[in-house]
Amino acid sequence: MKALKKRILEEGAIAHGNVIKVDSFLNHQIDIELLNEIGKEFKARFQNEKIDKILTIEVSGIAIAVIAAQYFNVPVVFAKKTESKNLDKETYESTVHSYTKNITYTIRVSKKYINEGENILIIDDFLANGKAVEGLLDIIKKAKANLIGVGIVIEKGFQKGGKNIREKGIRLESLAIVDRVEDGRIIFR
Amino acid sequence: MKALKKRILEEGAIAHGNVIKVDSFLNHQIDIELLNEIGKEFKARFQNEKIDKILTIEVSGIAIAVIAAQYFNVPVVFAKKTESKNLDKETYESTVHSYTKNITYTIRVSKKYINEGENILIIDDFLANGKAVEGLLDIIKKAKANLIGVGIVIEKGFQKGGKNIREKGIRLESLAIVDRVEDGRIIFR
Repeated sequence: MKALKKRILEEGAIAHGNVIKVDSFLNHQIDIELLNEIGKEFKARFQNEKIDKILTIEVSGIAIAVIAAQYFNVPVVFAKKTESKNLDKETYESTVHSYTKNITYTIRVSKKYINEGENILIIDDFLANGKAVEGLLDIIKKAKANLIGVGIVIEKGFQKGGKNIREKGIRLESLAIVDRVEDGRIIFR
Repeated sequence: MKALKKRILEEGAIAHGNVIKVDSFLNHQIDIELLNEIGKEFKARFQNEKIDKILTIEVSGIAIAVIAAQYFNVPVVFAKKTESKNLDKETYESTVHSYTKNITYTIRVSKKYINEGENILIIDDFLANGKAVEGLLDIIKKAKANLIGVGIVIEKGFQKGGKNIREKGIRLESLAIVDRVEDGRIIFR
């Protein structure tokens, strides 16, 4: 996706550990116009699929998922990372390891909001080692829902998440795939 | 706002400690159509104001803020509750006490994304004791930005946040104000 890649090159910064910082338009300050272009692009890529619901994970997947959901005309459900008194007791759970933060946490979705047989599209901002997406796949499986595919804004192609997901035969659409970072410069695949 | 109140009455549940659960459409599963009506209503209420940016706080303010921002045609910035390697070192900070969770946490916004003189509209899902909004007000003040007002989806009128904010002379627009909960029933003001 051209407009996204342009923006990543113009404003993306490389932080320690090959973290790609896109704080200025994607996950701290949010550019709504670009997000709408991203939403339209996801719709274009999955236009032939029947989708009932978009599943994402807090925090930074939410903004992208809700804007995209307007083009699919479906509700969004986001998996929660923190225990909350407000969450139903009956939940589908999975554990996710974050390499960036070096912690393992539990993600939860109320059993009310993913139903057997529903067609689910996963949307998230980043794909690196793929652990968050794997957690969501696990929840979809436990709920006996159907996975339609995974839509990612920025895939870090030099980490193994994308490869693992594609090898499972899952349809993965990444709008920008960073092949590598060379001398602080981002090279797209 | 009629459609919102109807939905709260139909689907809202009262959990322990007068927590109003709106998981089915606002903060776990998200009804995008209702969110668009909410966004339009915020725009209608602040239509005569010049707004440069919408400020919210993770997690559940984000979905509402980004949908509303489409009607204002401005970017969203969300304050972060967790320390992150990805966040800039230069931040405006404030502390917020959560009565629900009984913890005090630090909220942060990168100094890059709120600028002196910018006209800021705060948007959030709930207003109870008002501590999250007070933290955002503090950050706006530290950034020397201009507060235009506060837009809240559900105000718990029986807690003191709304009163405190109005007494400061701040324009507060709450789309539904719950006056009290009687025998498990929600009564709007």
